[in-house]
Amino acid sequence: MRVLITGGGGFLGVKLAKALAKKGEIRGREITHMTQADLFAPEPVKADFEVEGVALDIGDRASVDAAFAAKPDAVFHLAAVVSGQAEAEFDIGLRVNLHGTLNILEAARHAGNQPIVVFTSSVAVYGGEIPDVIDDFTILNPQTSYGAQKAATEMMLTDYSRKGFIDGRGLRLPTVTVRPGKPNAAASSFMSSIFREPLQGESANCPVSEDYPIWFSAPRTVVANLVHAAEPPAEAWGENRCLALPGLTNTVREMVEAMTNVAGSNAAGLITWNPDPFVQKICDGWRAHLKPEKALRLGFHQDKSFEDNIRWFIEDDIRR
Amino acid sequence: MRVLITGGGGFLGVKLAKALAKKGEIRGREITHMTQADLFAPEPVKADFEVEGVALDIGDRASVDAAFAAKPDAVFHLAAVVSGQAEAEFDIGLRVNLHGTLNILEAARHAGNQPIVVFTSSVAVYGGEIPDVIDDFTILNPQTSYGAQKAATEMMLTDYSRKGFIDGRGLRLPTVTVRPGKPNAAASSFMSSIFREPLQGESANCPVSEDYPIWFSAPRTVVANLVHAAEPPAEAWGENRCLALPGLTNTVREMVEAMTNVAGSNAAGLITWNPDPFVQKICDGWRAHLKPEKALRLGFHQDKSFEDNIRWFIEDDIRR
Repeated sequence: MRVLITGGGGFLGVKLAKALAKKGEIRGREITHMTQADLFAPEPVKADFEVEGVALDIGDRASVDAAFAAKPDAVFHLAAVVSGQAEAEFDIGLRVNLHGTLNILEAARHAGNQPIVVFTSSVAVYGGEIPDVIDDFTILNPQTSYGAQKAATEMMLTDYSRKGFIDGRGLRLPTVTVRPGKPNAAASSFMSSIFREPLQGESANCPVSEDYPIWFSAPRTVVANLVHAAEPPAEAWGENRCLALPGLTNTVREMVEAMTNVAGSNAAGLITWNPDPFVQKICDGWRAHLKPEKALRLGFHQDKSFEDNIRWFIEDDIRR
Repeated sequence: MRVLITGGGGFLGVKLAKALAKKGEIRGREITHMTQADLFAPEPVKADFEVEGVALDIGDRASVDAAFAAKPDAVFHLAAVVSGQAEAEFDIGLRVNLHGTLNILEAARHAGNQPIVVFTSSVAVYGGEIPDVIDDFTILNPQTSYGAQKAATEMMLTDYSRKGFIDGRGLRLPTVTVRPGKPNAAASSFMSSIFREPLQGESANCPVSEDYPIWFSAPRTVVANLVHAAEPPAEAWGENRCLALPGLTNTVREMVEAMTNVAGSNAAGLITWNPDPFVQKICDGWRAHLKPEKALRLGFHQDKSFEDNIRWFIEDDIRR
């Protein structure tokens, strides 16, 4: 079993690579080789099998074809331009999120071995005039270019799977928090930084109001779900290969209270509350109330409380 | 007001061109020039303004850019590979329906004049595991490559409009029947031929069962709706620029009875009933029960009965 991870140098990509290194198999088949691909060749994770880091621009079709020359059996396609950048730099979002993903699908199809393709879509595919509670049959109505590019490629992932070209599985990720590292151009970046920075004694700004609700999941849960996504048999997915992952809904206020419960009250005092209309506008287009019934039926994991997320962040990313 | 029609040599494109020639204006602005573009340069319709027929392969980006050099103010993008061909020849469907439409969107964006873009999507975007009755908030879950390519480009049309690059309007057409001309590679081709051929003394085969329900609209209604689509102001469309057009649901049996009511019983005797599993499978993935509330609110027209469709076909396409 050969594995390819795009975005394999990103924070989720590295955690996923580590999880696969530890698990050592997919669908009971031993992993023999893993490639972590990213714009710059990542440092490979340690594993009992061969792991390599390679540079890959998914916007370049020839490079993507080359990455598929070894016919990976399982592909985790995480590479993407984040929401804030895709909104501000439309052409880059189009090149990477739309055409880059179409390149991956075409290369996977032409590899000819019907690879498993686990694709990270996003809750950003929902928005606009839709019912308050989103279920498995709610229309995708993205209100960001990032969400539109994800929604468009979801349609193609399901079609490539229906045609038997690939065995695709698309996961609409909740906001992943708490993320380690630095703030990025995602409009949701603050949803990690207002916990990550204060927990390490630094200040961070919250650009939206305290009562803004967030549909979130912890990195641990999301990585477990990415690993799980390769497992259920094709038939179990039915006629739509994409689904909303489980998550939890809390307001910013509830999340800050959870941080205080776990780590004491000093951290919350380091949050500043200066509104940012650009971020607020993007966030207003997102939705926070979902009923992910299909995902739960297929055995995907659900967070229990944001307090766990704070604990896991401290364990996995501060004290490591 | 300059107008560009892609697929302008097709049966709907020609009827639309004639309707615009007769109306002479869009949003109260006089039409001064119209281009009918198709794979082979169409014979231009007669009008009080200049009309030209040009050859255009929308799969070729440079040609599409050239077609937008004159900065059309209103674009009716009808060009597409039909469902049966897109299913049998995946690459051609991908090139024309997906990348061709993306080319149109990019050329319209770079023209810089925020043109009106009326796009023909299809009821084929619906299918799979969805509620029995489809409303404006039902997920797009296409079960054909044609439907997937239309659904993917719907997402982009709405996003290009949200960004202010174009003023897009996407219409999910019901099955258009009765179509003039010859059978084509659309899986829905029989939905016209079992009326068109018998009404002209020839036999035709019905490849699905008599109780198969069809969500249909007459060419006259669809053309009136294409013309209407350019009219409602951008704000009226809200946060999704694509909608299901009104239609009617009849079974094949009810439609044949309507033909008998209008034209006598000889025609129905010319229908043969040999099942075709390839066509049946595609048709089984389509849906026939819709509640097109948004379209009705925006003033789109709805068929009254299939008997009208038979009468109009005789008037417009046999006795012309």
